[in-house]
Amino acid sequence: MTTPHLVEYAEASPEIRALYDEIKQGLNMTDVPNFWKCLANHPATALRIHELAKAVMSPGAVDALTKEFVYLAVAVMANCEICVRVHTKLARDKGATDEQIGEVFSVISLAAGNAALANAWRVPIDEQFA
Amino acid sequence: MTTPHLVEYAEASPEIRALYDEIKQGLNMTDVPNFWKCLANHPATALRIHELAKAVMSPGAVDALTKEFVYLAVAVMANCEICVRVHTKLARDKGATDEQIGEVFSVISLAAGNAALANAWRVPIDEQFA
Amino acid sequence: MTTPHLVEYAEASPEIRALYDEIKQGLNMTDVPNFWKCLANHPATALRIHELAKAVMSPGAVDALTKEFVYLAVAVMANCEICVRVHTKLARDKGATDEQIGEVFSVISLAAGNAALANAWRVPIDEQFA
Amino acid sequence: MTTPHLVEYAEASPEIRALYDEIKQGLNMTDVPNFWKCLANHPATALRIHELAKAVMSPGAVDALTKEFVYLAVAVMANCEICVRVHTKLARDKGATDEQIGEVFSVISLAAGNAALANAWRVPIDEQFA
Amino acid sequence: MTTPHLVEYAEASPEIRALYDEIKQGLNMTDVPNFWKCLANHPATALRIHELAKAVMSPGAVDALTKEFVYLAVAVMANCEICVRVHTKLARDKGATDEQIGEVFSVISLAAGNAALANAWRVPIDEQFA
Amino acid sequence: MTTPHLVEYAEASPEIRALYDEIKQGLNMTDVPNFWKCLANHPATALRIHELAKAVMSPGAVDALTKEFVYLAVAVMANCEICVRVHTKLARDKGATDEQIGEVFSVISLAAGNAALANAWRVPIDEQFA
Repeated sequence: MTTPHLVEYAEASPEIRALYDEIKQGLNMTDVPNFWKCLANHPATALRIHELAKAVMSPGAVDALTKEFVYLAVAVMANCEICVRVHTKLARDKGATDEQIGEVFSVISLAAGNAALANAWRVPIDEQFA
Repeated sequence: MTTPHLVEYAEASPEIRALYDEIKQGLNMTDVPNFWKCLANHPATALRIHELAKAVMSPGAVDALTKEFVYLAVAVMANCEICVRVHTKLARDKGATDEQIGEVFSVISLAAGNAALANAWRVPIDEQFA
Repeated sequence: MTTPHLVEYAEASPEIRALYDEIKQGLNMTDVPNFWKCLANHPATALRIHELAKAVMSPGAVDALTKEFVYLAVAVMANCEICVRVHTKLARDKGATDEQIGEVFSVISLAAGNAALANAWRVPIDEQFA
Repeated sequence: MTTPHLVEYAEASPEIRALYDEIKQGLNMTDVPNFWKCLANHPATALRIHELAKAVMSPGAVDALTKEFVYLAVAVMANCEICVRVHTKLARDKGATDEQIGEVFSVISLAAGNAALANAWRVPIDEQFA
Repeated sequence: MTTPHLVEYAEASPEIRALYDEIKQGLNMTDVPNFWKCLANHPATALRIHELAKAVMSPGAVDALTKEFVYLAVAVMANCEICVRVHTKLARDKGATDEQIGEVFSVISLAAGNAALANAWRVPIDEQFA
Repeated sequence: MTTPHLVEYAEASPEIRALYDEIKQGLNMTDVPNFWKCLANHPATALRIHELAKAVMSPGAVDALTKEFVYLAVAVMANCEICVRVHTKLARDKGATDEQIGEVFSVISLAAGNAALANAWRVPIDEQFA
């Protein structure tokens, strides 16, 4: 059996319970996503990554929805299915419309195809972009 | 010698010259980027990709700067150096500030690290995201 | 139907049967992993890859467990789910503890995030690392 | 010009100077690697990533050299040239021999080739690894 | 629920119905693959990508089966399971034998392993290939 | 200094000299590519990979040029610049025309873009491809 253990609230340490409470409140969900229940197998990682995620994903000079679109592009390129599912939902929670999702996926596809073209042709770097 | 030939304006067919003119005008640049001078070795590809890029990158439900940020995320993940350079510049041309670029790169990094964590832990897909 | 045929012992050629016997003994498992049952569809590949794997994964200047951790890092980055599952188990069979697995996954995540940052910022190569 | 600005010590804020001092001491180098001089363009990222890196890379249940080998595997798979260069050097600084480096690279190559084979054959997940 | 809606024929616009008819005829299948039923959520993307695919995949200087093998190599490297499944089937529909599939997968694996080796060793570009 | 040492003929062991002789003859080149001069730092790897490459790349049910095109697709997706350069040249040595190279790169780009689309939309696997 190599399926990861999911650390449930009942068995979690006080530190992880506090983390779960904060995550549920932040996402306005009744249960913590499995991502965090897996990370909680190594509590130090769960706590560090949560601190980092909060700092990075909170709106700043870039708004929260744009950050979700950027996150989604990375998730697609890393081919992380659960990341794509979660962040498609989070984007919708932040107001993304079907048309916006469709356009973002279209940009991702164009960029992936063009990166392959640039790498295939070994395009030399232009002086104006050096 | 495996460096790709760069098709210059002087040697280009009328069709490719028209393409170059349109690209220079669209980007407000005095010279066509090497990407297009490489693609022009296979004119059908150059023309098709340009049609696609125009349709996909023009502002719609998602604004042009957000599209550049998404494009940039893909370029980083595909590790296409010239794509990163060009689209960092295009993002700046469309008004991106240093702080915005910094935040976008920070989101890309977080998402790449978290995708690796999710793939490593083999996080099972939550019912709420199924 | 595009599910790959799994070549079972009963139908295998003598050469592949000998390979299966060696793999089961080497892994101390009662059945051959599906990976090998798929490769056996192209016997030359199965035999070549097994020779390569034996030579590369046997302990040398680097011990067998460290090799599993390195293998696991690649499997995560290639997002090969079955590779991650198999080599997480093999790492445990070779003595990896929960804490070690947790730390290794944490290193993988950091390195993936930092690679994205380096590629995003187009960090020029330092003279001291040139 | 899209080459990133390298934030030098002389122009850095007190917070970034303190970071540079700590990095130089930790790596026992007379100059800070360009990676950090790029990140310092967005000080919040530089400070956060440094905290994360210290926590993750310090020896724990896994020793520091093994962590470098795992890091190196990720760097190769993300095709981050500067990451590969820096962490090959850091591995050597921590005692890695030529033979060890050679074996680690050989494991990375095997794992990358086998991940491709598993993905190509669509190997179904074995019950024993489910 | 984040499972994508599959746009069925009955609910599709006339434009998408015409696309579906053309796809079914081209692939000689009684139902349109899910790929297109997903894309149809953003009709502009579905129509653009179909035009592109027709132009690129039709036999030209390179025959249709060779194009499928190249496509398959990309699908494996992008680890797109459904792409691998569909294009393995399309390759077989175009006459690929078991032995050919086995050899192609073997080349993909070799190339993936060697790319990792080249990136790990940071092989400098030869003058004869510059 | 982290530039890899290139093992030249004069300093090589008899075993590696024999390998170099065979490679030069096989490629009909006056000098051995740097790839092999790097691998020769770990002779066991150089010898094993050469055996594997010979077995995999020699024409069989798939001809040598088609194998080069498949190899090239992998090299592009792994973004290994030297691999792309070397195998573009080897494809030309085996008769590939400009038009064929252009079409192959176009297929690679389409497939990369479509893999991103499939991963973004999380296309469920069709029963007919299960």
